[in-house]
Amino acid sequence: AAHALAHGLEHAACPSLPERGCRHALVQPSENARLAEIEKSVKGSFDAIVPALKSMAALGRGPDFPEQAQQLARQELGFEFPQEVLERAWVRGPELGRLYAEGTFMALERAVCEFGARIQTELRAAQNLDAFLVDCGFHALNVSACADGRLKGLFPFILRLPDSPLVSRSAFAGTLFDIEEDVRHWQAAELRRFREGYPTTADAQTRYLKIAVYHGSSVDPQHQGCAAHGSNLHAAIEAALERLYQFRMAIENAFCCGASTDLLLIGVDTDTDAIRIHIPDAHGDLSPHRYVDNAELYRHTLGLDADQARLAVYEAIRAASASDGWGKGEGMPHDGMRRLIATLLINNMSQIEYVGEYYGGWYGDGGHAERFIGVGNGFQEVQVRNLAYYAHVDTVEEGAADLDVGIKIFRKLNLEKGLPIPMALRYRFDSRVPGSRERVERKVQRMAAALRNRYASLVETDRLILWGGIQDLPLGSPMEEVDLR
Amino acid sequence: AAHALAHGLEHAACPSLPERGCRHALVQPSENARLAEIEKSVKGSFDAIVPALKSMAALGRGPDFPEQAQQLARQELGFEFPQEVLERAWVRGPELGRLYAEGTFMALERAVCEFGARIQTELRAAQNLDAFLVDCGFHALNVSACADGRLKGLFPFILRLPDSPLVSRSAFAGTLFDIEEDVRHWQAAELRRFREGYPTTADAQTRYLKIAVYHGSSVDPQHQGCAAHGSNLHAAIEAALERLYQFRMAIENAFCCGASTDLLLIGVDTDTDAIRIHIPDAHGDLSPHRYVDNAELYRHTLGLDADQARLAVYEAIRAASASDGWGKGEGMPHDGMRRLIATLLINNMSQIEYVGEYYGGWYGDGGHAERFIGVGNGFQEVQVRNLAYYAHVDTVEEGAADLDVGIKIFRKLNLEKGLPIPMALRYRFDSRVPGSRERVERKVQRMAAALRNRYASLVETDRLILWGGIQDLPLGSPMEEVDLR
Ligand SMILES: [Zn+2]
Ligand SMILES: [Zn+2]
Ligand SMILES: [Zn+2]
Ligand SMILES: [Zn+2]
Repeated sequence: AAHALAHGLEHAACPSLPERGCRHALVQPSENARLAEIEKSVKGSFDAIVPALKSMAALGRGPDFPEQAQQLARQELGFEFPQEVLERAWVRGPELGRLYAEGTFMALERAVCEFGARIQTELRAAQNLDAFLVDCGFHALNVSACADGRLKGLFPFILRLPDSPLVSRSAFAGTLFDIEEDVRHWQAAELRRFREGYPTTADAQTRYLKIAVYHGSSVDPQHQGCAAHGSNLHAAIEAALERLYQFRMAIENAFCCGASTDLLLIGVDTDTDAIRIHIPDAHGDLSPHRYVDNAELYRHTLGLDADQARLAVYEAIRAASASDGWGKGEGMPHDGMRRLIATLLINNMSQIEYVGEYYGGWYGDGGHAERFIGVGNGFQEVQVRNLAYYAHVDTVEEGAADLDVGIKIFRKLNLEKGLPIPMALRYRFDSRVPGSRERVERKVQRMAAALRNRYASLVETDRLILWGGIQDLPLGSPMEEVDLR
Repeated sequence: AAHALAHGLEHAACPSLPERGCRHALVQPSENARLAEIEKSVKGSFDAIVPALKSMAALGRGPDFPEQAQQLARQELGFEFPQEVLERAWVRGPELGRLYAEGTFMALERAVCEFGARIQTELRAAQNLDAFLVDCGFHALNVSACADGRLKGLFPFILRLPDSPLVSRSAFAGTLFDIEEDVRHWQAAELRRFREGYPTTADAQTRYLKIAVYHGSSVDPQHQGCAAHGSNLHAAIEAALERLYQFRMAIENAFCCGASTDLLLIGVDTDTDAIRIHIPDAHGDLSPHRYVDNAELYRHTLGLDADQARLAVYEAIRAASASDGWGKGEGMPHDGMRRLIATLLINNMSQIEYVGEYYGGWYGDGGHAERFIGVGNGFQEVQVRNLAYYAHVDTVEEGAADLDVGIKIFRKLNLEKGLPIPMALRYRFDSRVPGSRERVERKVQRMAAALRNRYASLVETDRLILWGGIQDLPLGSPMEEVDLR
């Protein structure tokens, strides 16, 4: 908040911030309190590590160091360090860098486990999301966001969407998602409808919805925007929009007989978590200039009662559809799309208020503050802002650019402070497919070897520390560590 | 043939070989003559390179070298070398290694073009293959063979199958095909039936057929079998069979409602091109010990007229189905499967006779004699025995093992003779998918960079020379060179 005030900014949604928060009729404060508890607990596990290690450093190298250190770990962190690492501390002192990485991985394992439990609860709520999506005319939702750690809370926090079998996601630097992979996903979703009639039969007029999410910074737009696009918001929007159109055209060209998809484009202000939603026209086309700004909408609907506010949301969508000039489109999106957009806007109002209540309106960590680099091919249970820089990578060879960005961020975040970079490789296997578990295990080991090769000087000096784990496909499956030696 | 005789072998199909070939009533000699012409023409382009370069070496380094060399190339090889390479010959003499690689790539481009034309002709014939497959109850055929160059002629020569939109193939060292990729292919084939009713509608009781092809050597089984399995035939069979069952189980587990596939296992004797086909039982299960040996079948049906011989083929399948002991199965495969097997056996009789007529019964190049290493993700137009060692690779990181095998083979084939290793990267793009062409082009360049990194010492000393090309998906599309610098 200090940074925002130094820039002389007024909060776009709630002008009385940071002194006093606002209360919007469509927001449930109890839900916000629950989320704040989860965020605090997850981040707390990670943030306790450095203070604990500092205490450990002060213990000296006496013969009782291993025992004292282990006790300290149990007490302050709730887990134990590998005994052999502590035992050898008498030689060159405790390996605090390695212990820091070990602690990070243990905190991650615990967070995954906690999140897993929470997700089971959410899954029951997700039954309603599935019904809602189908009701809005969508049989699948595929969301691609930027890999930036500030978007890690996109689903549970910013959009307030629970996990659901109908929703899939991916993260790529600069929202440059993989068209070929998405075409395969589209095929799988269509086949499921044809074969299993799930969630709708093939003759139902439901649609596949592809959403792209870009981001910018209202506090420091020139420096804290999307790094992959040099903090150029316009470039970030154009890139996401181009991929969306490429995806739609790929489906239309490669599959005959009326194959079609809906598109949606969402922008996130990573300082306030307020979103803007670009409103498709009646043909499904989008414009960088036709959108509803949710901070503005929140502000203008403060003081209305819930029913009035809800009507105002729909009116804002209608007004955006009627945009003239650069944002001009041809008519309104279909009814189900308008309902989905309204729901996302209303959900996000809770998050605007969340950042107001718990962060004074703007996040203090305007820039990067990730705890580790996550590498994987699926989504993650631990969806908390700035917890990880996440790279969606199948091979180091293809993902080198995304990985290099992560390493660059962590040179500043960790190496400059003398801490190593913890990198966690986490991949999903499918226990229904024979041999899949073993192949994914080998893949993690192969990736680790390729990473050791690419970042040899960092690995050899213990400045990059790898950890690997695999999980079965179903949400909430336990994580199993993979031996990377 | 000399090697076979030195081993005291009698030809299993035609005992009078190599003195005198046999004539089987089910074989068309005209088709064999046509194929021999194609094989000779393609291999001739490659085999003319070394003699031409030897003449070039004898030209001296005089001022008229570039002109004389170019004329020699036009005359002997039918193309021109890059002028700048010839121009600089006065400094350190002609770069014969580089010219050898350039010549190989040009011969490849020409062969692709010639094969492309031929494939258009075959495609018309393929209409019949499609109808035949559907008639046998199959809506898709997916064949995975070993990457060994001796199996490169599997379709047009050994099995006499034209290209067809219903047939897809892949090649992996040791027939260790990619289950996950095959599951995606299965999905795509199923979706096409549901959406387009092609080639059969979803309610038709047709099946997806997965075929695995392993190989061994009858002349030198201990040394010239499948290198990936240490020339252990039993291991090669077991590995292929295990993958087949894994594939079937993956489909059955991951897709409900009666998803099922047919399996077939074929072995090739790379000395005679005679096949054996393992006969599925009524449940679709296979056995390493239950098969029809086509060399034996050919031999025992010599002298019969066409109708009698055809009946004998079906009788052999029936007899194999009734195997006792280790090969015992439960009943006969379905009628369509029996017809497909019979057709493949009869087709292969032509190839047995082809090798008899043009190679004296056994290939002289019992071992490796590939001309270049082919790297790609699709099938290849140039399907001629021992023309290329082909690696089905998407990233060097994942395909390293297959690539290393190829490099090892070519250390012996080329490096020991002072010749460099030509490696051609060829990938397909899909012009219907926006941006696909550019992405595949970048992929080829990325692969080249990864190869230069992995085989740095070979590349830096010009002992490994890379070439890249891309082609659109439709068969017979022109090949476009990719700039690898
Ligand atoms: Zn600033
Ligand atoms: Zn970004
Ligand atoms: Zn021998
Ligand atoms: Zn092999």
